[in-house]
Amino acid sequence: MLSMIALDADDTLWHNETHYLEANTKLKYLLKGYQSPEQIAQKLGEMETRNIRYYGYGIKSYTLSMIEAAIELTDGQISGSEIQKIIQLGQEMLGAEVSLFEHTEETLVRLAGHYDLMLITKGDLLEQGSKINRSGLKKYFRYVEIVQEKTAEDYQRLLDRYGVYPSRFLMVGNSLKSDILPVIAIGGRAVYIPYQHTWAHENAVEGETPGHLYYEIVHLGQLPDLIAKLDQ
Amino acid sequence: MLSMIALDADDTLWHNETHYLEANTKLKYLLKGYQSPEQIAQKLGEMETRNIRYYGYGIKSYTLSMIEAAIELTDGQISGSEIQKIIQLGQEMLGAEVSLFEHTEETLVRLAGHYDLMLITKGDLLEQGSKINRSGLKKYFRYVEIVQEKTAEDYQRLLDRYGVYPSRFLMVGNSLKSDILPVIAIGGRAVYIPYQHTWAHENAVEGETPGHLYYEIVHLGQLPDLIAKLDQ
Repeated sequence: MLSMIALDADDTLWHNETHYLEANTKLKYLLKGYQSPEQIAQKLGEMETRNIRYYGYGIKSYTLSMIEAAIELTDGQISGSEIQKIIQLGQEMLGAEVSLFEHTEETLVRLAGHYDLMLITKGDLLEQGSKINRSGLKKYFRYVEIVQEKTAEDYQRLLDRYGVYPSRFLMVGNSLKSDILPVIAIGGRAVYIPYQHTWAHENAVEGETPGHLYYEIVHLGQLPDLIAKLDQ
Repeated sequence: MLSMIALDADDTLWHNETHYLEANTKLKYLLKGYQSPEQIAQKLGEMETRNIRYYGYGIKSYTLSMIEAAIELTDGQISGSEIQKIIQLGQEMLGAEVSLFEHTEETLVRLAGHYDLMLITKGDLLEQGSKINRSGLKKYFRYVEIVQEKTAEDYQRLLDRYGVYPSRFLMVGNSLKSDILPVIAIGGRAVYIPYQHTWAHENAVEGETPGHLYYEIVHLGQLPDLIAKLDQ
């Protein structure tokens, strides 16, 4: 018997990565007089990787990485006016519409009638809080947790706080690293929904990790039926 | 009988505002060829106020505001190399030593022996989490909550989550707006420790707000005795 179902948000309930890719494309256009698209993409990737430990996740962090990449790519020659355009890219991301996946709302309606739902999302408090408010989905979630990381310890701490046994907890998300593996490591259950459908199968299948199982589905619309089967 | 005592962190347990003032001073020096110190301070203040709703609190937000202020103050003439120096100011802030107030640790030692302590701090998850870790104080707190805002509703939600009655909850902090008034608005108790000693008195005094009372002390070292008197 499940007592709590938790869902990831970015790229599980709504599109997120697309906004980063769009900004990436616009940065390449902005800097096209200085470097090739490949060099720009590589430098930005390096900056993101280097900065994650200083700045964490989210759009402010990405904006600062875009600025730093632009400065390095232009040998410091970029002007303040051009950097203002990069800041504008970040502000467009912050204000971007929250675009739900096709099956998100119908699935939450069905699940919220039977389970306590929790939203667990990694990132910036203000950004994630704002997206949750704008998504119109807050009413389906009894609890919302915005966390800095999603390690096994982080999940264990959350379950302790809410008094939920891992065996009665199920997590749903698009990241093996953040949503699936740490949850099964503490004895919970997990449903994996790959974002780009790269590894998707026609129906729910059981993925295997050492000594544990998780489930994989193609889209969120398949979740209620899977849970109905699991939780008999 | 108190069942939980919560403390604010920035400028209650350790110095914080000083790091912002130092960066402010360095920015004035960096831009001295463009504008007067007064104009720089005013523009930065405007940017911070305008940006708080987009970027929230914290050093990343402040860094972006410094960059935007510098671009406007120089009519976009500032170079990428100079902006790199502003980014460096932000990174110095992120890495700055956590400097505890004189009485912080002794007070936490005394209180943690008798009460469940909670740290409630507003701001950026990564920045605040990092400072808590580096402060060496985490061991005294049973719970740590990093929140985006500290309204009466935010406090009520926290107390509901932990099953604590407002009348058995006491909050300690340096901000009337964030630490004191919202707590007494929901029926909790509060101890105010002004940061700059501007309104400080020799001993604990009762401050008055419409229909409610809070306590005011000069430094954290006075807290255990005040609580011992209150909680008899």
